[in-house]
Amino acid sequence: MPDGTPARHPAQAALLDLFHDLGAFGATESGGTSRLAASAEDGQARDFLCAWLKRHGFEILVDPIGNIFGVLDFGRGDESRCFFSGSHLDSQPDGGRFDGTLGVACACVAGVAMQQAIAAGKLEPTYRFYVAACWTGEEGARFQPSLLGSSAFVGSIPFEWALARQDQDGVSLRDALSEIGYLGKAEVPKPARYLEIHIEQGARLEAAKMPMGVVSSCWGAKKIRVLASGRPDHTGPTPMEERRDALLAASQVVVQVNKISRQAAATLYSSVGRLEISPNSPNTIADKVQLWIEFRSDDGNALSQAERQLRESFAAVEATTGCGLAVSSVEDREVVEFDEQGRSIVEGALSAAAIPYMRLSTIAGHDAIRLQSLCPSTLLFIPSKDGISHSPEEFTSDEDICTGFEGLLQAISSLISAPPEVLAPSTILGAET
Amino acid sequence: MPDGTPARHPAQAALLDLFHDLGAFGATESGGTSRLAASAEDGQARDFLCAWLKRHGFEILVDPIGNIFGVLDFGRGDESRCFFSGSHLDSQPDGGRFDGTLGVACACVAGVAMQQAIAAGKLEPTYRFYVAACWTGEEGARFQPSLLGSSAFVGSIPFEWALARQDQDGVSLRDALSEIGYLGKAEVPKPARYLEIHIEQGARLEAAKMPMGVVSSCWGAKKIRVLASGRPDHTGPTPMEERRDALLAASQVVVQVNKISRQAAATLYSSVGRLEISPNSPNTIADKVQLWIEFRSDDGNALSQAERQLRESFAAVEATTGCGLAVSSVEDREVVEFDEQGRSIVEGALSAAAIPYMRLSTIAGHDAIRLQSLCPSTLLFIPSKDGISHSPEEFTSDEDICTGFEGLLQAISSLISAPPEVLAPSTILGAET
Repeated sequence: MPDGTPARHPAQAALLDLFHDLGAFGATESGGTSRLAASAEDGQARDFLCAWLKRHGFEILVDPIGNIFGVLDFGRGDESRCFFSGSHLDSQPDGGRFDGTLGVACACVAGVAMQQAIAAGKLEPTYRFYVAACWTGEEGARFQPSLLGSSAFVGSIPFEWALARQDQDGVSLRDALSEIGYLGKAEVPKPARYLEIHIEQGARLEAAKMPMGVVSSCWGAKKIRVLASGRPDHTGPTPMEERRDALLAASQVVVQVNKISRQAAATLYSSVGRLEISPNSPNTIADKVQLWIEFRSDDGNALSQAERQLRESFAAVEATTGCGLAVSSVEDREVVEFDEQGRSIVEGALSAAAIPYMRLSTIAGHDAIRLQSLCPSTLLFIPSKDGISHSPEEFTSDEDICTGFEGLLQAISSLISAPPEVLAPSTILGAET
Repeated sequence: MPDGTPARHPAQAALLDLFHDLGAFGATESGGTSRLAASAEDGQARDFLCAWLKRHGFEILVDPIGNIFGVLDFGRGDESRCFFSGSHLDSQPDGGRFDGTLGVACACVAGVAMQQAIAAGKLEPTYRFYVAACWTGEEGARFQPSLLGSSAFVGSIPFEWALARQDQDGVSLRDALSEIGYLGKAEVPKPARYLEIHIEQGARLEAAKMPMGVVSSCWGAKKIRVLASGRPDHTGPTPMEERRDALLAASQVVVQVNKISRQAAATLYSSVGRLEISPNSPNTIADKVQLWIEFRSDDGNALSQAERQLRESFAAVEATTGCGLAVSSVEDREVVEFDEQGRSIVEGALSAAAIPYMRLSTIAGHDAIRLQSLCPSTLLFIPSKDGISHSPEEFTSDEDICTGFEGLLQAISSLISAPPEVLAPSTILGAET
């Protein structure tokens, strides 16, 4: 082993191996990952992970929305108390390797490590352990809205509605899941607790030089779809005053959305990440443009005001462009507070293990937020270099991953044990390092 | 025959039949046509038309860029003097049925009608007749730039360069033509004259109640591609001040392009018909947006000034968005004057046939404009209802089509005969009506 490379515990090595192996599915030339929900690449990653789970003694369950669960029977505890931990495998187009996948790999290897700790008499769990190995369609890149799998699982949207969502080519999630063999039927028990570890996708941990974050709450969001309707005409001969250019109207709306957030009194983030332009041909004036607008804030009133201001701005755009503007849908995500008791147990475990952490909020959506509506839920963050995410440049070092993994083990161990107890530092990994 | 339906000459009936038959290939539910260049639908239309041409005695030539020519040996005149007439078969996505296809059908049936007139001793041509049955990729919808086939044919761009153009899925024109079986090898003689009939795609003929237009010149155009470059990031956690949102920058450019044309002293049309947005996902800030910008004017100076103003506007957009803006390419189309002698012969023929016409300019590009750089070229227009084009609502009545066809026959007859002579009204069609 070269100088400077720290010795790894076998569980840490197994984690890095599994994480890097998963990165091969949908790997892009730029070093990122393109693994859209229920795509061929997603199917390959799922197949690989299911084989890994079976090899390590997990039973596989696939529910009707394609969420995969790996169940580990510790031979201990109440069968009806199910502890879930996991994340998602899908990515943005040319997104990062860490987003989601790392949380899945951590939960998988944590299950194996716990089983060994139980066998060694060092852990006495009172829950069954379920790896949520793949929440379907977390990213919202191929199928909208995001968090489809976890939303259907917790019952906030019907399975049937979620399965009927279509990608831009008109393929339904149902057909896409069926194509890759993950349209399941399993009835999965209700979780008693959920815990997820994820990269921060922001730079607060890095700036504070903190290896871990315990997430207290999630910002609210408004995701608003707007349709600009004009008339298709030849870009050449049509006199300017007769044009009804939907792309011009949409562009004015994009500029307006940005202005609303810049002028807000509260902290208000905004973006338009996607336009669907029809016909999107150089020589034809666009007649339809669909805009995917979002506002995010920790202040619910600021979100309501942003939506109001957006709607009020339509009249001026319609007057100058001759186009119609209409809101197609509004998705409201309220500010969510994570389970206070779980957070306090986890913070105690991290302190006892001498793993520094800070409390922070999350702006991005996560499956853990959906789970919080069903059961006590805890979300842990590890650093993202420069805060960059949804990009091939997304990066978290092996050191930060290994520290985060140890924190995750401490957190799960303290939550899963009855009575909840704070373990001595490195109780689980300690024996072999 | 119901009252009110005028009796048609067999050639007029044949024209309407051929035109409506061609409309079946790529017909859309909305009543329009989606027949992108070298697509399966284009291939089917080509196959159908080639069969029609062979059945009517034409020899088929396919050149290296997939342009199709139907050669009719009248058994008269100098083999080296080739008279070409035709148009294109490709359409915009959900475009109109008339654009291009009508000019092709008119030229095909005109050839047959002339052959009959020759047999009847009523026409003495001094040219071979070539139907330009399909100039490849006129529309610029699937492959850019537009006018690919006629540009390569006249030598203004190399065949190899044109064949290497790729559609948005990375398919080259070469592969697309090969797939539909129209990557030809024929060496086609240089035309001595070209004539094209096309719908106006504007409302000037309709407003003036004129059945025909003789086009004197074509507006110039600048087609400018601009790339906005930002950074991909998660639309949630990334602080607003750190975002480099290429779609915001592109939207500001779209608004700016419109402002430049509205504030111009000369008549200056502008449009942005197409954006290519990467990754175009709701939850990722766009890092690359390519814009297809065009300016059109009959004043070359106004075009130069528009390009200058556009470039000058970049600095402010870059400063407010943190993105980079760069011009990827500029395609200059100079103002083109059509052959004066041909126009005067055609106008004489129309007058003699008592077909009212007006002179006008064209703003849209046409294959006839490219041909003018190689040989004397003439462009005729017939009315477009409400001036609408590149849309399923594009419409020209059967009456206007039949009048236009008669005008086309008069025009070709007068140009193709030596010495050029003005025919008596309806010399060709007269015998059978």
